[in-house]
Amino acid sequence: MEVAEGVSAATPTEEMNGAGNLMDFLDEPFPDVSTYEDFHTIDWLREKSRDTDRHRKITSKSKESLWELIKSLLDAWSGWVVMLLIGLLSGTLAGVIDLAVDWMTDLKEGVCLSAFWYSHEQCCWTSNETTFDDRDKCPQWQKWAELMTGHAEGAGAYVLNYFLYILWALLFSFLAVSLVRVFAPYACGSGIPEIKTILSGFIIRGYLGKWTLLIKTVTLVLAVSSGLSLGKEGPLVHVACCCGNLFCSLFSKYSKNEGKRREVLSAAAAAGVSVAFGAPIGGVLFSLEEVSYYFPLKTLWRSFFAALVAAFTLRSINPFGNSRLVLFYVEYHTPWYMTTQLGKYPVLEVIAVTGITALLAYPNPYTRRSTSELISELFNDCGALESSQLCDYVNNPNMSRPVDDIPDRPAGPGVYNALWQLTLALIFKIVITIFTFGMKIPSGLFIPSMAVGAIAGRIVGIAVEQMAYHHHDWIIFKNWCRPGADCVTPGLYAMVGAAACLGGVTRMTVSLVVIMFELTGGLEYIVPLMAAAVTSKWVADAFGKEGIYESHILLNGYPYLDVRDEFTHRTLATDVMRPRRNDPPLAVLTQDSTTVEDVETLIKDTDYNGFPVVVSRESERLIGFVQRRDLTLAIKNARQKQDGVVSSSVVYFTEDAPQLPASNPQPLKLRRILNLSPFTVTDHTPMETVVDIFRKLGLRQCLVTRSGRLLGIITKKDVLRHMAQMMNQDPESIMFN
Amino acid sequence: MEVAEGVSAATPTEEMNGAGNLMDFLDEPFPDVSTYEDFHTIDWLREKSRDTDRHRKITSKSKESLWELIKSLLDAWSGWVVMLLIGLLSGTLAGVIDLAVDWMTDLKEGVCLSAFWYSHEQCCWTSNETTFDDRDKCPQWQKWAELMTGHAEGAGAYVLNYFLYILWALLFSFLAVSLVRVFAPYACGSGIPEIKTILSGFIIRGYLGKWTLLIKTVTLVLAVSSGLSLGKEGPLVHVACCCGNLFCSLFSKYSKNEGKRREVLSAAAAAGVSVAFGAPIGGVLFSLEEVSYYFPLKTLWRSFFAALVAAFTLRSINPFGNSRLVLFYVEYHTPWYMTTQLGKYPVLEVIAVTGITALLAYPNPYTRRSTSELISELFNDCGALESSQLCDYVNNPNMSRPVDDIPDRPAGPGVYNALWQLTLALIFKIVITIFTFGMKIPSGLFIPSMAVGAIAGRIVGIAVEQMAYHHHDWIIFKNWCRPGADCVTPGLYAMVGAAACLGGVTRMTVSLVVIMFELTGGLEYIVPLMAAAVTSKWVADAFGKEGIYESHILLNGYPYLDVRDEFTHRTLATDVMRPRRNDPPLAVLTQDSTTVEDVETLIKDTDYNGFPVVVSRESERLIGFVQRRDLTLAIKNARQKQDGVVSSSVVYFTEDAPQLPASNPQPLKLRRILNLSPFTVTDHTPMETVVDIFRKLGLRQCLVTRSGRLLGIITKKDVLRHMAQMMNQDPESIMFN
Repeated sequence: MEVAEGVSAATPTEEMNGAGNLMDFLDEPFPDVSTYEDFHTIDWLREKSRDTDRHRKITSKSKESLWELIKSLLDAWSGWVVMLLIGLLSGTLAGVIDLAVDWMTDLKEGVCLSAFWYSHEQCCWTSNETTFDDRDKCPQWQKWAELMTGHAEGAGAYVLNYFLYILWALLFSFLAVSLVRVFAPYACGSGIPEIKTILSGFIIRGYLGKWTLLIKTVTLVLAVSSGLSLGKEGPLVHVACCCGNLFCSLFSKYSKNEGKRREVLSAAAAAGVSVAFGAPIGGVLFSLEEVSYYFPLKTLWRSFFAALVAAFTLRSINPFGNSRLVLFYVEYHTPWYMTTQLGKYPVLEVIAVTGITALLAYPNPYTRRSTSELISELFNDCGALESSQLCDYVNNPNMSRPVDDIPDRPAGPGVYNALWQLTLALIFKIVITIFTFGMKIPSGLFIPSMAVGAIAGRIVGIAVEQMAYHHHDWIIFKNWCRPGADCVTPGLYAMVGAAACLGGVTRMTVSLVVIMFELTGGLEYIVPLMAAAVTSKWVADAFGKEGIYESHILLNGYPYLDVRDEFTHRTLATDVMRPRRNDPPLAVLTQDSTTVEDVETLIKDTDYNGFPVVVSRESERLIGFVQRRDLTLAIKNARQKQDGVVSSSVVYFTEDAPQLPASNPQPLKLRRILNLSPFTVTDHTPMETVVDIFRKLGLRQCLVTRSGRLLGIITKKDVLRHMAQMMNQDPESIMFN
Repeated sequence: MEVAEGVSAATPTEEMNGAGNLMDFLDEPFPDVSTYEDFHTIDWLREKSRDTDRHRKITSKSKESLWELIKSLLDAWSGWVVMLLIGLLSGTLAGVIDLAVDWMTDLKEGVCLSAFWYSHEQCCWTSNETTFDDRDKCPQWQKWAELMTGHAEGAGAYVLNYFLYILWALLFSFLAVSLVRVFAPYACGSGIPEIKTILSGFIIRGYLGKWTLLIKTVTLVLAVSSGLSLGKEGPLVHVACCCGNLFCSLFSKYSKNEGKRREVLSAAAAAGVSVAFGAPIGGVLFSLEEVSYYFPLKTLWRSFFAALVAAFTLRSINPFGNSRLVLFYVEYHTPWYMTTQLGKYPVLEVIAVTGITALLAYPNPYTRRSTSELISELFNDCGALESSQLCDYVNNPNMSRPVDDIPDRPAGPGVYNALWQLTLALIFKIVITIFTFGMKIPSGLFIPSMAVGAIAGRIVGIAVEQMAYHHHDWIIFKNWCRPGADCVTPGLYAMVGAAACLGGVTRMTVSLVVIMFELTGGLEYIVPLMAAAVTSKWVADAFGKEGIYESHILLNGYPYLDVRDEFTHRTLATDVMRPRRNDPPLAVLTQDSTTVEDVETLIKDTDYNGFPVVVSRESERLIGFVQRRDLTLAIKNARQKQDGVVSSSVVYFTEDAPQLPASNPQPLKLRRILNLSPFTVTDHTPMETVVDIFRKLGLRQCLVTRSGRLLGIITKKDVLRHMAQMMNQDPESIMFN
């Protein structure tokens, strides 16, 4: 049988700290020390109560002196200050990452002679000899083969460049995986599923720590530069949340309250997406729709502010801030789709996948370049000056026919060639992304799925365009194309494809569309984008309700109570509560007949995180709930400091202890640590209501009564296990409290 | 003392229906009939439970036959079907309203000779003689003076046109106010505060009825066309919600469940904003941030779909769909800011205000035109071809000075003239809007506040621009303006001003920015717009936390538990619950010792909406809660149909009634109507937790216990009154249950 979560056993250090604070916390209904263990769930109601107490104290103090008034004002504004700091730091980090990735990606191909820390573009921008037409070519920038052998062209140079490209890629990915492995195992993956879980009220110590922040930033640059099929957007959300956590520690308002801390983290997630895509509004909506659990309007406004500052900071830093897509890189991960034998050797796995990626990606022009550039080209329409292969159209071959009745143009050989290469790139991207899944390096989700969608969309777009040209008398084209105009825009198909693919993977809707149009500036395409988002959601939901992040959470067995799951079974609280039939009775304390020794035995024999207190074992009427941790500390302290408290002392949870004869041992009064308002439901309450209450109020446990008698207890874990059972899943997959 | 809300006394008709259904509802834990009275609050948890029961029944039936399977699929898709219908109808209505307003606004000035139902623009578009330069002038369109006297120019024609303009305006506004007065009093105002209240779980019968829909649509056209200082955006939200309510009645899933109905209405509100501004994403966010109370992700997706369909429908209808601002018209209302003696005579008031508006607006070119056109002009930048007065700049007067060091241009006489007229227009708009407040006609909020902000913004913009020109050596301009370029764009100042003013009035943030950039297409101005939204929110919040809608709700005394209010007082449940000290004891029923007569007496003597049931008066242990309505119906039915039930029969709420000797009267078993899972809190629960529970779970009442004994009850009204008291407001201002 398992009882209330939270503190299971205090570690020695914590106990010592706790003991020092005991006199403080006896004065308060809720002690100010953090009482949550790693991998346990927080109690939202309790955190909220503590914050209100704190706020009340500051408000009443503020009337005492000017200094206290200033302190209370500072406290009231600290939320906005934290947001400002988060925005500044995450914007700066994103800018630095962008610049570093630019430079290191180019380093795989060559080096700038005038200054080795210049990327290809910077090198040629600063060169005076560059002409407008050929901005990419300048004498200062030399490919490795040219630098080493003096020959820029030829098969030998190609092979040497190819070889060095693979070598650099292997070096980068090796460094990335080693750093993650040695210094910060939590830095791997995109981090979004874990952040979702943390925001729902789970504790994962160190997941948002300084060490993770540092290593994730460095390895993200390395992983992206290595050319692996992964993106940097998800990890940037993790980086921003680490910044948020860092600044929380500056203010006791946030560092000492797990509920308030999560409000800051929600806003930090918004700032992360804001800098990842240059999409501040999209970031706020992403945080709201996809990541956050408890998202009050206040957090909405603060997220908005943090996202604004972050976007502004990034824009001030980034010297090439014009084309928003330049912010992107490569592909993504879903660590549960396949497990290979290689998975046991993470470093080897990364090296192998990097090698294969580099080997296969180099020859195809559409996979060699960075994914963001690829997406940018696929989205583009063919203007008159466009030199891309994709724009190799035959210009009005039959001049004798009047211009007016031919929509579009026939494709030239370049387009057919591009079609083949795109098809190969599509297959390659899909396959390599599956294999890149879940490697132990930072990896993002957005761009890879967008790339797959954009390639598929562009291919379909060209096909429809050519159909419209060759069969312009077909009924579907006839009424639709205005004569003489290009009525099919393959770039739009690519954009819609990218949105649809990303929507299918993540099940985002509103935030997806907003991000897409903040990315592309294409407000006029709102209707096709929305249609794509809704359709891809429908189709994907038909295969399974979970998006990629929920699946990941499920796979890891985190205790995440999804807001979207509907619980429609006819079970009652009585079916879920512990003790079950044939279990030993519930471990309870009585208000005035338990001795110190009894309590100590109970604490030793069980590992429950708290105990209900009843009037007497006969009446079983509930009066409150006491935390294991508080009980342990209080008894230990009393034994040390309070004279006359011995093993046979009676513990009183009542308001007044009776006057006992002097011969009796001194009673121990513990009403102060008793929570007098434990949450209760009756045994006949439908489980759907119980689930709703757990979800909305963020409870950790709930006591079950019938006509005022205590019957049992339901913890969050019990709820999650019951839900898993009802959905025919393994209840044992819920591993944490 | 007051007890649980909801049904206070069933009306005769309802009772008869109810009696017919009694046998049905005895089979179910919750009867399927609507049990809420007008101006009462719904119980969200109960509605949710009922929906789950319904869903469960359909799912289990669906396995029985193919027909049932199809029915269950139809049921599952009915939500999307309703959204589709709402989108189609509200899009169509918005399109029709736009066209009608266009035509009737122009009718005040003149008529189209070729077809009287053409607006000015349509008239001249269809005319072949129109040149590109002078699109507004064509022989088919004649002003009234020209048509009646043959003279188009001159003082006489001006006065005649002026007079007829006022006459038409008076006619329109008279028709509008009369129709509202006679047929649908609920059609007045913007409707958003009431919709907010309804969405939070309040019942206002007829507020979203067919009659309101029809009258609001017609009178909206009349009111806007009359040229009054009011907008049509808010009312369009009301119209869309009426559509939503209309389509709910087609599906029992929505018509019989007040909770589900509100999900549809939230989505309908999104569709309303979507068509009002042509801003589908903004609509969804507006519904989320400003209007809705309970907004699950499912509703987010559906709102998104409804908004999409509505925007698409509107775009298909509107022949001039290009310039989005053309969708707008004039000013707005807040009925509590001032009360005039005229307020007692609504028709006279409307006529008077219309007369003054028309009289003063006509001479000033900036107030004569429609507000949407005005805003559009203020937002515009001065291009080379711009003929507007606002763009009368002197082009580089001093050619000898190098172009490079002079930013901007000096203003010409036209600009100075425009500045004066704008200042007058600003004063006029502010004053007349205050007087237009709360008249009994449909009136919206957005455009008037945007107009005020835009005028102020443009004035500031021009001032800064001229400063930059005349003092281009000042330090603030020196580092900021790149030489040779226009570094101050007055149009942008107008846009930011409009956003700031609207933000200050409504306190929207994210939805405001999204609406602004969906309106203007100006994604690149996202940073100044966001900064304006955040700043105006800060400044406005310093004067008072409530936005205009919340103030309106407060003024009307609706029971709205705002999600934003933070309750930080140290009161406990025991301070708020009834009975208070010295009150008579709580009216309860016992589970096995109350006779039918006792119950009937209790029902007659009290008007509480429900009664707690306890084990016995001595133990006071709570076993459940029974609704007054259910009790009345059950006893009435039993007396009619069940032999042997007389006044002295004992009512049993226990599982089994004891076997009584035949001489005793037949017992009446009523466990079926007993709610076995009433919501309870302990008397020591802090009120902030209670408020949180009421807010998040949507409760109507909550029972208060101490160690399993029933002590009292807290209703939503008690909570709201207590909150009002704590904020030093009059608790009696909370009028409804």
